[in-house]
Amino acid sequence: MIIDSHAHVVLPNERQIEWMDEAGIDKTVLFTSVVHPENASSLFEFKKEMGTLYDIINGIKNPLEERLKAIEELKSAIKENPHRYVGFGSIPMGLSYEENLIWIEKYIVKNSFYGIGELTPNSGQVELLEPLFQASGSTGNLPLWVHTFFPLIAQDIKTLLDLAKRYPSVSLILGHMGGIHWLDTLVACKELSNVYIDLSATFTTLALEFAIREFPERVLFSSDAPYTSPLSAKINIETLIKDKGLCQQVLGGNIANLLQIC
Amino acid sequence: MIIDSHAHVVLPNERQIEWMDEAGIDKTVLFTSVVHPENASSLFEFKKEMGTLYDIINGIKNPLEERLKAIEELKSAIKENPHRYVGFGSIPMGLSYEENLIWIEKYIVKNSFYGIGELTPNSGQVELLEPLFQASGSTGNLPLWVHTFFPLIAQDIKTLLDLAKRYPSVSLILGHMGGIHWLDTLVACKELSNVYIDLSATFTTLALEFAIREFPERVLFSSDAPYTSPLSAKINIETLIKDKGLCQQVLGGNIANLLQIC
Repeated sequence: MIIDSHAHVVLPNERQIEWMDEAGIDKTVLFTSVVHPENASSLFEFKKEMGTLYDIINGIKNPLEERLKAIEELKSAIKENPHRYVGFGSIPMGLSYEENLIWIEKYIVKNSFYGIGELTPNSGQVELLEPLFQASGSTGNLPLWVHTFFPLIAQDIKTLLDLAKRYPSVSLILGHMGGIHWLDTLVACKELSNVYIDLSATFTTLALEFAIREFPERVLFSSDAPYTSPLSAKINIETLIKDKGLCQQVLGGNIANLLQIC
Repeated sequence: MIIDSHAHVVLPNERQIEWMDEAGIDKTVLFTSVVHPENASSLFEFKKEMGTLYDIINGIKNPLEERLKAIEELKSAIKENPHRYVGFGSIPMGLSYEENLIWIEKYIVKNSFYGIGELTPNSGQVELLEPLFQASGSTGNLPLWVHTFFPLIAQDIKTLLDLAKRYPSVSLILGHMGGIHWLDTLVACKELSNVYIDLSATFTTLALEFAIREFPERVLFSSDAPYTSPLSAKINIETLIKDKGLCQQVLGGNIANLLQIC
C-alpha cells in the first residue's frame, strides 16, 4: 500500500483525491491547513497566504478559531473519503500537561485521529513541547509530528531530540528531516529508535539517499501537499530507490507499521 | 538539447558521464568542486567533506591552492569530453577590480570558460561582489553564478539584486532561487531582465511552478550534482511541466540562449 505520510487538506477536496489518484497513492495521512496556497493564482496572492502561515510557524500567531475551523475541514475531508485518509490533529503550542490532556481527549481521541501535528514551535520554544510529550505518554503514546525546517536552528533540533530521548515511548516524526541541519539530525537519530524521519521538503537527493540507507525502517515518504505535488514526491523516491522491497517500505510500509494501518 | 546548467566536477569523471547518460542530458555546464562528497561512504565521511564546503560557503576559508587545483580538475574533465561540457570558472571572494581583471584573464578567458561561479559570499559580504560585476562588464559581460541559499539572508539577496540593477549588462544567475527566500526573490526579479533563476535545491514544487510560470524564459534547469542526482532533477521538471515546448526551454533552451551554446 502506498501511503503519503504527510499532506495538508487541499480545497476543493476532490482535487486532493485527483492528485492521489494521479500519483497512485492509496492512502494519505492528512493534516489540517489554516491557509490554502493551492488556490493562489498569482505570486502576490500566494505571498499573502504564506504570510499567515509563517506567522503561525514563527509563533507570531497561535490562532484558536482558525485551528478549530481547520480541524472541522479535516474531519469533513476524512468523512467524505474514509478509506483514503487517516488524520493527525493539531494542537495549540504552549499548553500545560492538563490542558494538553483535555485538548487531546476533545479534539484528537474523539475524532479518531492517529497522531498529533503539525507542531510548529518557533526557535527557542521547543521546550514548550515537554508537557505534550508527557500527555501523549498518558494517552496511548500518540505520535507527534514536528516541523523541523526553518525557523528552527540546530539547538532547537537538539532540544527536540533530547525530549525524544527522555520520552522513549512516544514516537516523534521529524518533519522535513531537520531542514538545512539534516546531516547533524541524521547523525543524532542513530541512538533514538523512537524517532522517525519525514522525507518531504528536502533540497538534495544526497540527504534522501543517506537517510534511506541509514534508517530504512524509519524513513517516511510524504508530499507535504500542497507544497509539493504528490506525483513529484513519489516519483522522486521511486527514481532514487532501485530495490523494490525497500521502495515499498519507504513509500508506505514504515508508516503503516508505525500507525498500525492495515 | 538537454543541458544541465549547473553541476560540479564529480570523481571519477566517468561517473559524471554515466549520470548524464542515464538522465539523457546532452551537455552540462560544469563548475569546480573543492570537495567530493560523492565519494563518502558513511555519514561521518560526508560530514567531514561538508565541513570543508561549509567553511568555504560561510567565508571561513577562501583557499587559493584548493581553488587552483579544482580549476585544473575542471579543465581536465572538459578536455576528456569537450562535447559534453562547457565550464564556469571560480574566483576568490573579495578581489579588487584590477585583481578580478587579472584573475578573469588568467583563469576564465584563457580557459575558454563561459562564466564565473559558483560565488559563495557569506552573509553580509555580498557588496564585495561589486568590483566583480564591474570587471565582468569590462570583459564581455561574463555571467555570474551566485549561491543564494543558506547562509544568505533576505537582506543579502536584496543587496545582490541591487547590484544586478546597477549593472544591467551583466547576467546574474541566482543559484537555488533564493533558498527559503524564494518567494520574495521571485517577486523582486520581475523588473530585472538580466537576472536568471536556477531551479536546483528547491524544497517545494510550488516554488518551481511559480518560477516557471512567471519567468518561462529565465528559469534554468540544473542538478547541482553531486548534491542532487541529474536523473531525479530532470524527472522532477518533466513531471511538473506538461507543455513539451516549455519543458524543452527550461531543460536546455534558456541556458543555450544565455550562453550562446549551439
